[in-house]
Amino acid sequence: MNKQNYDVLQKIVGDDYFIAGKENLVPYLYDQVEYTFRPEADETSIVVKPGNVEELSQIMKYANEENLPVVVRGGATGLCGGCTPIEESIIISMERFNRIVEIDTQNMVAELEAGVTLMQLLEELDNYNGISFPVHPGDEGAQMGGMAATNAGGARAVRHGVMRKHILGMEVVLPTGEILKLGGKLTKNNAGYNLTQLIIGSEGTLAIVTKILLKLYPEENYTASLVVPFPKFENATNAVIEIINSGISPLAVEYMDKFLWKESAKSLGMHWQAEEGEADLLIMLSEKTEEALIKSCKEIYQICKKHNSLEILYAEKKQEQLELLQVRGEQYNFKKKWIYDSFDMAVPVSHIADFIKEIKLVSKEYDAPSSFLAHIADGNVHNDMWLVNGKPPVYAQELKNKMYEICFKYNGTITGEHGIGKIRIKDLLLMKSKKEIELYRGIKKVFDPNNILNPGTVLE
Amino acid sequence: MNKQNYDVLQKIVGDDYFIAGKENLVPYLYDQVEYTFRPEADETSIVVKPGNVEELSQIMKYANEENLPVVVRGGATGLCGGCTPIEESIIISMERFNRIVEIDTQNMVAELEAGVTLMQLLEELDNYNGISFPVHPGDEGAQMGGMAATNAGGARAVRHGVMRKHILGMEVVLPTGEILKLGGKLTKNNAGYNLTQLIIGSEGTLAIVTKILLKLYPEENYTASLVVPFPKFENATNAVIEIINSGISPLAVEYMDKFLWKESAKSLGMHWQAEEGEADLLIMLSEKTEEALIKSCKEIYQICKKHNSLEILYAEKKQEQLELLQVRGEQYNFKKKWIYDSFDMAVPVSHIADFIKEIKLVSKEYDAPSSFLAHIADGNVHNDMWLVNGKPPVYAQELKNKMYEICFKYNGTITGEHGIGKIRIKDLLLMKSKKEIELYRGIKKVFDPNNILNPGTVLE
Repeated sequence: MNKQNYDVLQKIVGDDYFIAGKENLVPYLYDQVEYTFRPEADETSIVVKPGNVEELSQIMKYANEENLPVVVRGGATGLCGGCTPIEESIIISMERFNRIVEIDTQNMVAELEAGVTLMQLLEELDNYNGISFPVHPGDEGAQMGGMAATNAGGARAVRHGVMRKHILGMEVVLPTGEILKLGGKLTKNNAGYNLTQLIIGSEGTLAIVTKILLKLYPEENYTASLVVPFPKFENATNAVIEIINSGISPLAVEYMDKFLWKESAKSLGMHWQAEEGEADLLIMLSEKTEEALIKSCKEIYQICKKHNSLEILYAEKKQEQLELLQVRGEQYNFKKKWIYDSFDMAVPVSHIADFIKEIKLVSKEYDAPSSFLAHIADGNVHNDMWLVNGKPPVYAQELKNKMYEICFKYNGTITGEHGIGKIRIKDLLLMKSKKEIELYRGIKKVFDPNNILNPGTVLE
Repeated sequence: MNKQNYDVLQKIVGDDYFIAGKENLVPYLYDQVEYTFRPEADETSIVVKPGNVEELSQIMKYANEENLPVVVRGGATGLCGGCTPIEESIIISMERFNRIVEIDTQNMVAELEAGVTLMQLLEELDNYNGISFPVHPGDEGAQMGGMAATNAGGARAVRHGVMRKHILGMEVVLPTGEILKLGGKLTKNNAGYNLTQLIIGSEGTLAIVTKILLKLYPEENYTASLVVPFPKFENATNAVIEIINSGISPLAVEYMDKFLWKESAKSLGMHWQAEEGEADLLIMLSEKTEEALIKSCKEIYQICKKHNSLEILYAEKKQEQLELLQVRGEQYNFKKKWIYDSFDMAVPVSHIADFIKEIKLVSKEYDAPSSFLAHIADGNVHNDMWLVNGKPPVYAQELKNKMYEICFKYNGTITGEHGIGKIRIKDLLLMKSKKEIELYRGIKKVFDPNNILNPGTVLE
């Protein structure tokens, strides 16, 4: 970019919201991907922070005319390098789109600017009696626009599904600068192609989300967590399948390797009580009434017993439940120094036991240290390939390909929730037919004829 | 089309599955739109009935090469002329795609060929203990491919949402003949643009659906129906809003004009018991347990009472509930000889009272006889403009435009569930921005470069 580009952009957003210079750029270049496999950021990029949709529209019109690459940055809690500029780009930070426009209690819809964080929304909803939003990707710094663009999931998808299910409409700015209002506060709407659903999950390659209409729900205040150890891994997965097919609908069902539960507890100064058994599940429940909670607990208890569960730990007190979540969260701090690459595959839940077993087996064949956690009732597995003596393992690519082969054998996907971003572009080619990729490219061209929006993310 | 076209197509499907000649074509030309406003079919068209996806792929490759228009015909239960050929076309009847490939009880997913009817699916599910599929657009002759392509809704969307929510993947044939397999039996899948969601609701303009993966659910066996009369229409709508926001989630909440309830009951030889009040709601409930059903009934009862409901009729016996549904269904037979045009607008539920009142008011200003029914908890209204002395009313277009103005004022849509088809193409232009239409056309061109698939449906 040249001086004139800088001047024009600076004029649109104002001096206070224009940032250039390598040293100032540091906080705007990466997301939460491990440094070992994140894409390299281009440090000659600049940051602009538009204050409203008209400024953003002007920026895009200018960028499109001048063929300047644009990367959009939300909360940067992503895990696939989606918001990292890999060539000299205009980084658009959405932080000033931070207004909760409306909490509409009649239609149970929130109208939110794209930069509103999940934390901000949840805090706002505390002011309303008994209204909640259930999707929770883990990091409450995630922004609404990013959660929409990446179709965020998380542990609670078991009960509540992913973002796609809850977004009724959006305002977007196209790469060519036009402002579109899509959808509405409507339960049913069959007028025209559903562009909202197309843009959800398109990872900032088709349009910039500036506002979303988000469905809200009555709060579920009665919660409990169960830690259920099973003698064998298959006992656990069989129980999971029976639980979800019974219609009980737990909030979350989380699996972690036993050593991760133990080490995470230890590093928090706690003790992991489930000594025996091969596989521990953390089953979280939330219901609208105490009766419903007790009923679900009983049914889950019976199903688990039928599948030979060992002694079940039952946590009803807020503090106890919080501690379990802390242990679940701590696993990352424990393992992060060891990780070389992390995966996000998902398979049909009926294959989850075989899938995880085969992935473990093939890792063993390579003597590859690894760790596993899974949103197991969603069939979504996050396994890590570890560094070897602090270095990327020589077998990394080969082992990854073998894991994908196993995934495809079970009709799985290379990414259940994290997305393609810039780290899985080549992997996507393994999974999709030539024609499907051709359609992607065609759609991209319709929205973004000059390919300026998030280049390196789409398969241009 | 010429003799050679006929020969090639006949050779692909075989003599038994090729139909030409005006007199043989009659059953393949129209859907369920009223004859008063249905599009005119081209009777020089021909019908082919491919037996499998490879034959269909061959047909499309040939049609694309030869630039022959193609119209796909499912159960023909649509209400907007989507499957009517308005120029000389190849009508592809999907009736031989009638195989239930798999009922997968582990993943709770049905793999269904596109020509499987809703009735066929429901009968098959009777063989499985306690598994159901909830979406019900009314006519069980609807085929799965059509229900997917049109994003079918229906009365039960209140509790279960529309088709879009339940389709995990599909097999499609593109207008250019390629076969694509999209999605899978996956709860989470973020790999690439979501073409499944784009094709759902595209009304046979982007691809031909040949197979779908449909989510199944545990059956809800405990049902009840309530007829709740209210003194004023606003009492009813206020109660509806409070009910759905409470999280009770009824199966359906149906409103009809009182004279429709009464006349429909009369024509079935019954008597409509709700004598008093201005507005009657039929509230249907289904739950997994008796306790849950009693609880929902009690809560609804309390909310309705709070909004001044009159004497509530409670139907728990299967036969009584069936009779109520029969009265609801009979309204069409009663009114059909009077109808000139039918609408399918939807608005945010908070505006439903004002919306219906204003539509009634503007109809009155034109002295226009009309009737109203609504999936009222979805904000989805089906109102009819009646014939005047057996003829299309002179004010028809003007009144329609005024109704749409009211709809747009409340941020509504011209079609909640029936779709655009061939009867609302011009209306869609009133609702969408120029740029959005341009995107539709661009997407259409990516999938269907020669515009052969269902011409006259998309805005070519």
